[in-house]
Amino acid sequence: MKFSFKNDYSEGCHPNILEALLYSNTNQQAGYGEDEYSLKAKDLIKKTINNQEADVYFVSGGTQANLIVISSILRPYQCAVSASTGHILNNETGAIEATGHKILSIETEDGKLKPYDIQTVLDSHLNVPHQVMPKLVYISNSTELGTIYQRQELEELSDFCRKNNLYLFMDGARLGHAITSEISDLSLEDIAKLTDVFYLGGTKNGALIGEAIIINNTSFQQDFAFNIKQKGALLAKGRLLGIQFLELMKNDLYFDLAKHANQQAMKIKNALLEKGTVFLSDTYTNQIFPVLSHDIIEILSEKFEFYVWKNIDEKSSAIRLITSWNTSDQAIQDFIKIIDENL
Amino acid sequence: MKFSFKNDYSEGCHPNILEALLYSNTNQQAGYGEDEYSLKAKDLIKKTINNQEADVYFVSGGTQANLIVISSILRPYQCAVSASTGHILNNETGAIEATGHKILSIETEDGKLKPYDIQTVLDSHLNVPHQVMPKLVYISNSTELGTIYQRQELEELSDFCRKNNLYLFMDGARLGHAITSEISDLSLEDIAKLTDVFYLGGTKNGALIGEAIIINNTSFQQDFAFNIKQKGALLAKGRLLGIQFLELMKNDLYFDLAKHANQQAMKIKNALLEKGTVFLSDTYTNQIFPVLSHDIIEILSEKFEFYVWKNIDEKSSAIRLITSWNTSDQAIQDFIKIIDENL
Amino acid sequence: MKFSFKNDYSEGCHPNILEALLYSNTNQQAGYGEDEYSLKAKDLIKKTINNQEADVYFVSGGTQANLIVISSILRPYQCAVSASTGHILNNETGAIEATGHKILSIETEDGKLKPYDIQTVLDSHLNVPHQVMPKLVYISNSTELGTIYQRQELEELSDFCRKNNLYLFMDGARLGHAITSEISDLSLEDIAKLTDVFYLGGTKNGALIGEAIIINNTSFQQDFAFNIKQKGALLAKGRLLGIQFLELMKNDLYFDLAKHANQQAMKIKNALLEKGTVFLSDTYTNQIFPVLSHDIIEILSEKFEFYVWKNIDEKSSAIRLITSWNTSDQAIQDFIKIIDENL
Amino acid sequence: MKFSFKNDYSEGCHPNILEALLYSNTNQQAGYGEDEYSLKAKDLIKKTINNQEADVYFVSGGTQANLIVISSILRPYQCAVSASTGHILNNETGAIEATGHKILSIETEDGKLKPYDIQTVLDSHLNVPHQVMPKLVYISNSTELGTIYQRQELEELSDFCRKNNLYLFMDGARLGHAITSEISDLSLEDIAKLTDVFYLGGTKNGALIGEAIIINNTSFQQDFAFNIKQKGALLAKGRLLGIQFLELMKNDLYFDLAKHANQQAMKIKNALLEKGTVFLSDTYTNQIFPVLSHDIIEILSEKFEFYVWKNIDEKSSAIRLITSWNTSDQAIQDFIKIIDENL
Repeated sequence: MKFSFKNDYSEGCHPNILEALLYSNTNQQAGYGEDEYSLKAKDLIKKTINNQEADVYFVSGGTQANLIVISSILRPYQCAVSASTGHILNNETGAIEATGHKILSIETEDGKLKPYDIQTVLDSHLNVPHQVMPKLVYISNSTELGTIYQRQELEELSDFCRKNNLYLFMDGARLGHAITSEISDLSLEDIAKLTDVFYLGGTKNGALIGEAIIINNTSFQQDFAFNIKQKGALLAKGRLLGIQFLELMKNDLYFDLAKHANQQAMKIKNALLEKGTVFLSDTYTNQIFPVLSHDIIEILSEKFEFYVWKNIDEKSSAIRLITSWNTSDQAIQDFIKIIDENL
Repeated sequence: MKFSFKNDYSEGCHPNILEALLYSNTNQQAGYGEDEYSLKAKDLIKKTINNQEADVYFVSGGTQANLIVISSILRPYQCAVSASTGHILNNETGAIEATGHKILSIETEDGKLKPYDIQTVLDSHLNVPHQVMPKLVYISNSTELGTIYQRQELEELSDFCRKNNLYLFMDGARLGHAITSEISDLSLEDIAKLTDVFYLGGTKNGALIGEAIIINNTSFQQDFAFNIKQKGALLAKGRLLGIQFLELMKNDLYFDLAKHANQQAMKIKNALLEKGTVFLSDTYTNQIFPVLSHDIIEILSEKFEFYVWKNIDEKSSAIRLITSWNTSDQAIQDFIKIIDENL
Repeated sequence: MKFSFKNDYSEGCHPNILEALLYSNTNQQAGYGEDEYSLKAKDLIKKTINNQEADVYFVSGGTQANLIVISSILRPYQCAVSASTGHILNNETGAIEATGHKILSIETEDGKLKPYDIQTVLDSHLNVPHQVMPKLVYISNSTELGTIYQRQELEELSDFCRKNNLYLFMDGARLGHAITSEISDLSLEDIAKLTDVFYLGGTKNGALIGEAIIINNTSFQQDFAFNIKQKGALLAKGRLLGIQFLELMKNDLYFDLAKHANQQAMKIKNALLEKGTVFLSDTYTNQIFPVLSHDIIEILSEKFEFYVWKNIDEKSSAIRLITSWNTSDQAIQDFIKIIDENL
Repeated sequence: MKFSFKNDYSEGCHPNILEALLYSNTNQQAGYGEDEYSLKAKDLIKKTINNQEADVYFVSGGTQANLIVISSILRPYQCAVSASTGHILNNETGAIEATGHKILSIETEDGKLKPYDIQTVLDSHLNVPHQVMPKLVYISNSTELGTIYQRQELEELSDFCRKNNLYLFMDGARLGHAITSEISDLSLEDIAKLTDVFYLGGTKNGALIGEAIIINNTSFQQDFAFNIKQKGALLAKGRLLGIQFLELMKNDLYFDLAKHANQQAMKIKNALLEKGTVFLSDTYTNQIFPVLSHDIIEILSEKFEFYVWKNIDEKSSAIRLITSWNTSDQAIQDFIKIIDENL
């Protein structure tokens, strides 16, 4: 059995969650997110982000969160703006467009949007009413390339959006990894202040399923639950989501799990850096993209699963390695050992 | 703490499922439903319905199943037909319409559609192309009123649909309860032969989440997974659904759980019948709708939670009682004791 | 060649319009409704309704107007409410649902909605967030049955809507006929005060194409043009619509044409009343629904085209007769002559 | 009054059309495109394209045609592919996405798609079912840059599409100008053979409104009228469209008008070429994009209206000049005179 670095959702969930499911199992609870676990988990999240005015909703997955948030905010003629690498653009089978909204794509080097990028889009959409109206800025943190936003970058983006009457939405499928990155200077509290809506990903950080949508902009809070129900995302046993987030948010487990994943990735990264390996992007989260020779890739493939991400030249390709809350030291050591022996 | 008869999703899940989650937790598995548990569960379902040509997909909940199936089958100008009590009409926040499709409503006495009803709809939709085209017949089994389809009824409906080039889709959120009802003469195998698509509800029969969509009509199978992904219903950890259905389908657990729920409801029903109580509809599944005096309702309310379903007259109302896979004998006895003492 | 009473759009347009098209033909004009004719016509309409704050937009037809207005006002989870005879429910191939919105249907006797009807709908949609939210009340004036709203009726409806935070939208495909009916006490100015949005139908009152959407509620005005463009309704040669409405609104031509149509219908109605004929609904506009014996219907069919609307009994049916701005005295006389000779 | 070269829809319509409207005005006709003019016009078009199996439908404008065709062909998870300059991508306010479908954009030099471009898109959309499925190839002829497809180019594209199970749809808003271009070797008959669907633009070639959608692929013909109605595009007085296309298709008027527009543009082009002017793209239709100094542009602006299309450098910009079926020799001479005097 090969060890997989393909993604951060290969395993089940953190044992605390299973224990809590077991412990709570026979309690009768109200349905549709009105259970006591969900209510407590929401409180805990609002405390963590230090915003009692926020609204919190739990849904099952990232694509679901993205399509619900975006379709609930935009008017029919308004559109989202995303980096070309954005998950909503390439990896969600047109889920956003299926709700009626275009996504404008911006090429970037590192998967991050800057005010200048968005200004360019605004400048090319002035032919009213013959073009869609850019209205929501979609960013991922960490991005699909493993990079993260620093506080100043997010502040500038947030300022720009507010000045231009745009909404800022952060896809946080890997938000834990972003804010626990060794180079990060952003807190959840910062993010709550700087975005209109963001979500806190559970699926890729130790939950079975679940993303916590956090609505900071009060004008988007009214009636939000209708959107969740209409899109088929309101679980009858909402307790399943509540119990998980309650466990994750207790005693900083969420952050510890993400930090572990990051650290395991950094161990491999550092081992490769020592060998002079070049990386496709300079990341400090749980995704790394080293460029390796096809020979090494073949050797690694015998013991590990991972994606070959991009062909570089005849002799080498970038691979993507993703670590998780559950990646063991053994797996890391085994991987590094092969590197040490072959690079 | 009052005991709740409000619904069949108040508790967690059957212990076997928790055990299987625990046991499988650290196994690394492929994502998005390609895990070994999902594959085995699908096989087991196909065996149970005795149709190797069927396609099986797991999603999280009933509204999600309904909107994905219906929107994947219909062309933009085609519509669904449903009994006016149908879940898609009244309880899904316009989820079907949000995918662009109208639902035509038919008044019924018992929540079940008959060929005659549908013929009436066809006859009133002949003004081509100024009206929507009725194309998919949506039925629930058991229905929202707790009633069930007998084999002959379903055969007639299925025949009618095929003759009229209509598709037949069965919402099986409570399908276990329907086929294990003491008066049922239908099997899953029958249903697989008589419908184009149906689903097997897990959420209301012992799972944490999960409905198994079964596509019998091969012309709807191609590319179906795209629809699941686009609607945000493809779980990264599809194993969560696979593990649950694997447990439920093993050793007829699914049927045993449903039968238990039915039997508990029948005990209350019989106790009430002995007292001469009238019921809103004549049901043999886990939903019963006794008409009780407001005095009795008040007394029952002190110890039990349930919905007052429909006001009958100044002195009495129908209540809805739903039992579940986990409803204890104690709860039933306590309830019957109050009836015996007060009716 | 039989004379047709099938509808009010069998002929071309009023000669003044053709003349204006001819006269203006070689003028170069700005596209997309920015031409001088459209601008003047909008001014004239705002004068006529005595509301300088209104916004006016021209589109091609009624279904188009309905779908643009409704989809631009409602949020995804909100729905429209309509009499069961409403054009949007039965005659537009699911155009509203195709934009994602449900329509709740209310049975009425005369095609008109009353506050009580809507209250009933509100009362049965309290299961938040599991049901759609009724938000827009759609009425037709004159209705699909030829009936009209009196001032008091519309005031009561308007009051009710404002108190309940509902929007009131009037489909005015035959609004000219409504307000020029001999029993009407409503003016366009009244309607502008009492509705959020309404439209003034051209197609059924002497134009080639064209409906003038009038937005009284200023909160719906911003960005409305985007919706028109997005739905494919923004004509490059918007002048075609502007020129027509400019001619129709000049010197009350619009009202004169509607009054003519009404009067021609009333002549037939009165001739039939004298013979003791019963009518399906009591109308004073250009649609009448007399109940006639099949013998008479056959005789009339030899010289006239019309729809047999509803079977009444073995011997008789209601037919629908529609007169237009162009229905000649000769046609009316010929029709009455047959009645006189055979009834 | 300045003469406008801003577009080809500044004037009314060809006088033959006005005459026919006048002549037919009092004829009573069936509604919704069942009038005799529409039927004759459809026959004439089928004769012209030499395909009796084709279905022809008339709608009002280009955006409407595009959104109806594309949404009627694609399944929810399928998408269109277009050159980045395609009208559906930039100039239709997200009309296609509003029907639920993504459009994938391809950068091109000349606004034309080549098999290689599409192969690249196919190659990057293999991550089933996580990405949309490219299924319909949208091309414009003439393109938004004034360029045209030659027969061999269209044959190659058509072959590629058929081999890859893709549908080919040609936006023919300016198709007349394309096939009457002096360098064109394509006929309408060729186009009917090589595309699944295309449309023949009237609005930009002498009609008041109107595009003729021609469906060559018989599998898309069934029920197509439902789509037209649902999108609000079925005119009650369909005669307005029928009469216009009947006149345009008679005696090759359609082609003569387009050829005239092309020739007027070529006169200006040649005058500019003699002066050594460079063009943004090498066009032989009614759109030309000369690069001129800002001084000359200012002088021309005193007498003519046109769009400044693209800034080239500090001293010069490309302008867009569009001629029409009605552009007079006088206007051309005046324009050339200014060039001769100032360049």
